[in-house]
Formats: sequence, C-alpha cells, structure tokens
Amino acid sequence: MRLTDLTQHAGQWLRGAGPDSEIVISSRVRLARNVAGEPFLTRCDDSQRRRIAERLHEAVEQAAIANEMLYVDVEAASDLDRQLLVERHLISRQHAQGSGARAVVVTGDETAAVMINEEDHLRVQVLRSGLQLADSYEQIDRVDDALAQRVHFAFSGRFGYLTACPTNVGTGIRVSVMLHLPALKMSGQIEKVFQAASDMRLAIRGLYGEGTEAMGDLFQISNQTTLGQSEREIISEFNDRIVPGIIEFEREARRSLLATHGDAMEDKAFRSLSLLRSARLMSSEETMGLLSQVRLGIHLGRVQDITLQTVNELLQLTQPAHLQQIHGRAMDAAERARVRAEFIRQRLN
Amino acid sequence: MRLTDLTQHAGQWLRGAGPDSEIVISSRVRLARNVAGEPFLTRCDDSQRRRIAERLHEAVEQAAIANEMLYVDVEAASDLDRQLLVERHLISRQHAQGSGARAVVVTGDETAAVMINEEDHLRVQVLRSGLQLADSYEQIDRVDDALAQRVHFAFSGRFGYLTACPTNVGTGIRVSVMLHLPALKMSGQIEKVFQAASDMRLAIRGLYGEGTEAMGDLFQISNQTTLGQSEREIISEFNDRIVPGIIEFEREARRSLLATHGDAMEDKAFRSLSLLRSARLMSSEETMGLLSQVRLGIHLGRVQDITLQTVNELLQLTQPAHLQQIHGRAMDAAERARVRAEFIRQRLN
Repeated sequence: MRLTDLTQHAGQWLRGAGPDSEIVISSRVRLARNVAGEPFLTRCDDSQRRRIAERLHEAVEQAAIANEMLYVDVEAASDLDRQLLVERHLISRQHAQGSGARAVVVTGDETAAVMINEEDHLRVQVLRSGLQLADSYEQIDRVDDALAQRVHFAFSGRFGYLTACPTNVGTGIRVSVMLHLPALKMSGQIEKVFQAASDMRLAIRGLYGEGTEAMGDLFQISNQTTLGQSEREIISEFNDRIVPGIIEFEREARRSLLATHGDAMEDKAFRSLSLLRSARLMSSEETMGLLSQVRLGIHLGRVQDITLQTVNELLQLTQPAHLQQIHGRAMDAAERARVRAEFIRQRLN
Repeated sequence: MRLTDLTQHAGQWLRGAGPDSEIVISSRVRLARNVAGEPFLTRCDDSQRRRIAERLHEAVEQAAIANEMLYVDVEAASDLDRQLLVERHLISRQHAQGSGARAVVVTGDETAAVMINEEDHLRVQVLRSGLQLADSYEQIDRVDDALAQRVHFAFSGRFGYLTACPTNVGTGIRVSVMLHLPALKMSGQIEKVFQAASDMRLAIRGLYGEGTEAMGDLFQISNQTTLGQSEREIISEFNDRIVPGIIEFEREARRSLLATHGDAMEDKAFRSLSLLRSARLMSSEETMGLLSQVRLGIHLGRVQDITLQTVNELLQLTQPAHLQQIHGRAMDAAERARVRAEFIRQRLN
C-alpha cells in the first residue's frame, strides 16, 4: 500500500454512514502513550529520538493491528505528502511541521492511525463515520492492548498514564466528534453551543484542529480533561449525553429555519449545488461553504440526486494536497482553483 | 389588441438583432411637438387638457401610423398597467406618475409610440433593436409628417419647434442608445465614458432614464442639445461617430479582459447562468446583474446555448409589472422573487 493510493477515495470515516451521520461527520478517540524508561521527547536528543522511533515502528508492525498497514516516515516525507496526511486527519499539523525522527502507521481502512514521536512517543487514534464513539473506543482499546504487550508504557499508580503535557495525564484519552452545524451557525445559536462547551470544559474548534477557523460549518468538539474519570465514563458522557444534546439542538434549528425560511433554504441549497456544478474557478473555502449548504439541502430532502458520501468525499478530495497528488504535480493556488472546479464538476455532473 | 397581449413576449426592440447588437441593445429617437394655438400643459386647466388629449387621440388614429395600434388611456389605467408601459419603455415614468387627461398610442410592433400630454402635447418615439438611428429617424420622420397633416404644430421661424421646456426647443429631437458596457464597468473605464459624455454635452443614465442607477451594466446615452443642428446632423453625429467610438472602447475592454482574465470571465458567465437556472428566489436587480454576465459570456463565445434575444427578453419579462401581468395578480416583492426565479428557470432550462 502506498500513500498515493489514499487519494483514490476519501477516508472511510467520511463515507457518510453511521448513526446520526447527517450531523455527525465523524467520531474520534485518541490515546497518548509513552515508553517507560525513556525521556519525554522534549528532553530527547536526536539519537534517543531515533531509537524510540525505530523501536516503536517495530512494535506497531509486530502488534499487527490490521491486515493491511501503511508506514510513512514523516521525517523523510515531502511537504506535499505530509499535507496530504493532515488533510486526511491521519497526522496532526504539529506532526507534519515538526522535526526529527517521526512516523505514522495507518491501517488500510484508515480507521486507525498511530503517530510515533508527535508530542508523546505514541499517539493512537481511531476515526469512524457518524456517532460511533463506543465502537471507536472498543477498537482503540484493542490496539492499545496489542501495543502494551510489546511496549512497557510509562504509568503511575497515582496519576495513570504519564504524558509530555500534564493535560493528557491520566487516561491519556481525548474524545472528539466533528459536527456539521449549519443551522446553528445560520441562526446565530452556535454561540450558545460555544458557551455550553466552555461551561462543560469542552474544546470547540474548526475543521483542522486548533487555531483554524470553522469552514463549511464544521465544528470539532473534544474533551479537555483526561484525569479523574475512567475512559468509559468519558466516552459514555460524550456519546450518550453531550453529543446527542447538540444534535437535537441543530435538528431543532433546522426545523425552525425550514418552517420560517423554507424558500430561502431551498434557494441556497440549489444555488450552491449549481455553482459547484458550473464554476470554472473555486477556492477551498468556497467549496466547503457550498458543500455545507448542499449537505443541509440533502438532509432537508431538497437535494435528492447527491449523496452525503459524495459531499463528504468532495470535502476531502478538493483540499490542496489531495488535488496535487491526484494530478501528480505541484500547483499554485490559481491553478488549483481551476483544477478543483473541474474535479468538482466531473464528480457532480 | 389589448395591453396584456404585450406580456406574451418582449418588445421588438429587444430582439437582439440589428447592427452591433452585442453592445447596442436599442436605438431610440424621440420628437417633442405641441399644438399651435393651445397653451403648454403647465398652463392648461383640466378641460383644456382633456380637449387637447381628445383632439390628439383622434389625429393619431387618423394618421394611421401602423396597421395595428394600441390606445391606452393612461389617466384611467391601473398602476400596474402604467408600470408595465414604463417597463416596456413605451411611456416615461413622468407620464405614468402624472395626473390629468393623458394617453399613449403604440404600434402593434411597439417600434413607435406617441405619448399624448406628457410634458409636451405630443412625444413621439421610435425604438429599434441594435444601432439603427438612421432607420429610426426615417420612421419617426414619416410619423411626424403624417401627424403634421392633421395637427398644426407650434413652430417659430427663428427657434424651430416650440416646446414646454427650453431644452427641447429647436428640432425637438432627442436621440439615445441603450448600451451594454460590462467590460468598461468591470475595468473601471466606464468613468472615462462618463467624462467624455459630459465633455460632449451628452447625458448618460441607467436603464430606466433619469435618476435611476445603472443596473445590469446597461447605460443610456442621449443628446442634450436640440438647437443649432439639423435632425440629420444630430443623428449622423450620434450614429456614425459617438456610438461607434464607445462600441470600440467596450470591444477593446472585452478583448483586454479576455486576454488577462479569461478564466475569471468564463467562471463568472457560467456561474451566472447556473444561478439563473437554479435559484428559487431572485430579485430584479440580481436578475439584471446575472443576465449582464450571461450576455457578455455569449458575446465572448463562452455561453453557446442561450441567445441574445432570450437574455434581452428576460431583462424585460422579469420586471415587476410584467411578472404580475403574466400571472394575472398583484404580488408583493417576496412572491415576485419566487415567481421570477421560476419563470427564469422555465425559460432557460
């Protein structure tokens, strides 16, 4: 399996299936682990860092977490390959932009990815379509067990798993969901979600993690505290209480907009779809905004000849690195705008 | 022939034919005449005004300026009917909004219209598609001759035809063309046209005459002076020198935009067409802006499945009074936006 194989289709987590997938794009669980007896990465020199990377690469291969696995040496990878991995949510921006020996191992279906030498020695993530946090947790728990048989993790009886940053100490778990909240955004009620998230000590961000603007009305919500609760308690609170609350809030906002501004909503959905089908130049940002409207139009039953999966796929495949990988060459923003518009027209016509 | 028959199609002057019709929408010549021995309208009482109206109605009917003629008593007409006549450029806004006995007689093909009791007792206009000022003048000259056989016009050997407003004294002629100047507008060079027009003592205005904003990149240019030159000199200067100069300026701007921003121009044309074909709500102003882009796209060879005539027709038939006449009922702006979008979709799909 090669990295460029990935660009043939979007990640499995974008297939638009799974519970509540009209609002929940994807569910993600991430664990932070460090090798016992080795210094945290901030205190490693180059050779220590390289030794850890090699040892963990071997351990992950041996753990055989999937039949098919893709190993990418992120240190040696080109900028474009790194960006592709970020666009697919398989590595973090930090991991892409970092330095020194580091890697990622991805399962063939991309549901699981193990970053080696990001902030911690190991960052394991499971990413699935729709609201599937419990299943995601079961999967990551199996990966964690398989790795723990080969690596002795730094663990304190008092604090739990030890991590480079204190905010991850304890379970080392971070749970997040990516939500499509166009109606809450449109009606201005998204501010209430931000307030509630803040009250519950949850983080809420745009599509590509910290420091990015929300594009396409996509919001990522994650827990902030990893200490004092068990993994299953954290998952259960998120999966059964927090996310369903936001889903219901968005559904109510959609119903209300439809009742009071049905014509305008329909107008917006059809205009957006027709622009996607006709434009000759299209930026990433505009693409996401228009796809968001089409996605909403599908849920409202107005747009019927496009599937959620197609919309989700376009969200990923029209990103800059994807376009360049698909076309096999580096392109500047102006050329990408032309190629992106062409790609979208082909997919939607 | 009834007024509502007009709404089945756009005026003949919008058929997108005639010389230079990719830039010149229409040519218009107008004469101002007053009945000798009768006071100007500002000095008439109601009964004098009514007597003049009746006498001129009779004279116009007898002059038989066309096989088929439509007489509309503008005083008795509904607001909607008056607005329809304004949208078809058959009467002025002043005539629609005035008071007292007044009328208009229109030929079946709408190339000629005679307003009775507008600012002057008679305002005759000829309106034709493309750059056809000489032909228009020949036609209006024949109408003028036919009327002069039945009505003795106020005329001074020293000043020429006498009119209510001194700016019309002399030939009483006003010549104008409606131009589509999207490239000059887009490139900002339209300001130079305004400056040149001002230097040449020409008036330049938006689509519906004085005091209206230029919508759809449509500009109406007309002469200001009617004294000191013969009718044919005025026509010839306009038709052979002034308008061709502006046409060449617009053509050059189109070539230049195409060379430097071809992709963006194509993008704009296709986006505009697709919005017209897909929107569920559409204002008059947006319609004109989008049609302007499509019109330019046709000229540039980018849009090939729509004719200039269709675009021109939509410019007229989507106006508020037209939409309401076509649907046979009064509608508020919100309903018109819905009905307009539907009408456009039907015409373009």
